[in-house]
Amino acid sequence: MPNLDLARAAYFKGNQTIAVGPCVPVEPGPGQVQIEVAYCGICGTDLHLFHGAMAHRLHLPHVMGHEMSGTIAAAGPGVAGYPAGSRVTVRPLDPCGACPACRAGHRHICQNLKFIGIDTPGALQGLWTVPAHTLHRLPDSLSLQHAAMVEPIAVACHDVRMGEVHAGDYAVVIGGGPIGLLIALVARTRGARVRLAEVNPFRTRLAQDLGIEAVNPRETDLVKLVEEETGGAGADVVFEVSGSAPGVEVMTKLPRTRGRLVVVAIFGEAPKVDLFRFFWRELRLTGARVYEPEDFEAAIDLAASGRLPLERLITGVVPLEGLADSLRQMERGGEAMKILIHCAE
Amino acid sequence: MPNLDLARAAYFKGNQTIAVGPCVPVEPGPGQVQIEVAYCGICGTDLHLFHGAMAHRLHLPHVMGHEMSGTIAAAGPGVAGYPAGSRVTVRPLDPCGACPACRAGHRHICQNLKFIGIDTPGALQGLWTVPAHTLHRLPDSLSLQHAAMVEPIAVACHDVRMGEVHAGDYAVVIGGGPIGLLIALVARTRGARVRLAEVNPFRTRLAQDLGIEAVNPRETDLVKLVEEETGGAGADVVFEVSGSAPGVEVMTKLPRTRGRLVVVAIFGEAPKVDLFRFFWRELRLTGARVYEPEDFEAAIDLAASGRLPLERLITGVVPLEGLADSLRQMERGGEAMKILIHCAE
Repeated sequence: MPNLDLARAAYFKGNQTIAVGPCVPVEPGPGQVQIEVAYCGICGTDLHLFHGAMAHRLHLPHVMGHEMSGTIAAAGPGVAGYPAGSRVTVRPLDPCGACPACRAGHRHICQNLKFIGIDTPGALQGLWTVPAHTLHRLPDSLSLQHAAMVEPIAVACHDVRMGEVHAGDYAVVIGGGPIGLLIALVARTRGARVRLAEVNPFRTRLAQDLGIEAVNPRETDLVKLVEEETGGAGADVVFEVSGSAPGVEVMTKLPRTRGRLVVVAIFGEAPKVDLFRFFWRELRLTGARVYEPEDFEAAIDLAASGRLPLERLITGVVPLEGLADSLRQMERGGEAMKILIHCAE
Repeated sequence: MPNLDLARAAYFKGNQTIAVGPCVPVEPGPGQVQIEVAYCGICGTDLHLFHGAMAHRLHLPHVMGHEMSGTIAAAGPGVAGYPAGSRVTVRPLDPCGACPACRAGHRHICQNLKFIGIDTPGALQGLWTVPAHTLHRLPDSLSLQHAAMVEPIAVACHDVRMGEVHAGDYAVVIGGGPIGLLIALVARTRGARVRLAEVNPFRTRLAQDLGIEAVNPRETDLVKLVEEETGGAGADVVFEVSGSAPGVEVMTKLPRTRGRLVVVAIFGEAPKVDLFRFFWRELRLTGARVYEPEDFEAAIDLAASGRLPLERLITGVVPLEGLADSLRQMERGGEAMKILIHCAE
């Protein structure tokens, strides 16, 4: 049991600088809980923040982190059902509840959405206070390390659901980072045949080791391969997760008539998109962002089922002091997949 | 009753030249019918052909035209149910029946589709021979002039169906040519509130005369207008029919969270598309091309119902000799909406 009086936090101070210092616990108010954070994964978004993106949304020094697992330390007034020690993860979305999107039932893409860990302090600290409505319970069979993977798995579950992946589908995932690889793995659990395209050799090899048919699209003609493997029809569904110009260029060439495209990547600039191909083949493109509660529940079930090779996706577990180095490692893009930070020690 | 021995055709000879000469009737073979063409509308596609587009698909001299009405003159072997004089229109698609798209039930976007009137001779002639599987019967209550509008109405019915327009929806149509205006009119019959954006003043006024809330997006801030009229939510569905860069730029700014975009226009070059907005609002974009049999039946019902102001959309009826001038008039973009050619005289 960690000594919570000695809890610490990793503070992003801007200018690509992280400092670890004492955590300042926040008493849980009405409807809030205080969580002893066990593990927190580092997301590509955290790396973007580290590089200066979305600076206008941060109050420095900022505590990042939103892929976490932990146990309830204390519950505020009006919170029932979460006794101290309850094992939980957090769906880090705080919608306004009043905007047209919320009223239409699309609370996860609320027009005034606060993303916890960006717009408010995140999980890279020993004690973290969040609204109780964000909580999901963890089964005992799911380790806290694996549970820190629930958030990115929920992204993948959402993307696969938005792509309406069915058993027997032929799916292509463009981009084999943590989210792309998880989409491939989740789509496989839904009975799809999956081809993954990734240029980083470490990631391609890792995917292959996990039984995913991964290719390097600089070495293999992806369009030709998909045509051959689908009898000239094309893919049922394509996920664009690379956010790259070559990814956008190839994505429209892959689907069958009335095939589906899911845009998962975040495009800072508007790329050229072959709209003629959408007309010609009556393709459908859907944007997919974060997750809904059912995606978190599906992710927890899947993580607990043992059907995902989470052990292989976690390529490092380091203390808070390792955060800066881990961000640098992700920056180099080399041999990292998912790095977890051990928060409460 | 016209003298069919004197039937004529309008021949496109390339180089923006049309010549009217004797029609060379083709004896209907097995599974074919010969139609005495009454009226044939001129489509934007015909204008593109006239300007030299898709030249590789044409055998010159080429007879254009695919928006027609007529009566059966003769039926070939094996064709039952179409006695001479039967009033018909043609769904001008000839799919291969064997490709993956056809096998998947998407025959209208067959991967080897022959479009009748481009890949084979069209309807701008007194006697026209086509496969009988393309026929749709016309009710007596539908005049042959109005029936020549069935094909573009079927395009609009298909687009509205692909856009899943429901009663109460707020729809925006970008581009108010014949197809855009018909989409607006058909969406209105489905119970939608429709805003149409069109820069040509003649077209804007015509739409307004027909009760469609049309605006000139160079004079009115379309995004602001839609936001105001939807309580900040955005449009349920947006149709991009203009094929213009400003159209593509504005289209992603209009839909609500999980709103729908339908790409109807044909984009010769890949435009820049704000994929971030797709992610952010989980938008869905669908390409829509031609029509399926049910769209033709819906179009015939709608045309016969009197609920569409077809009289106002037909801005001219001229003989075959008027084709070249009519194409020039469409080219200038002025006061033309739909011009019909009277083929059998």
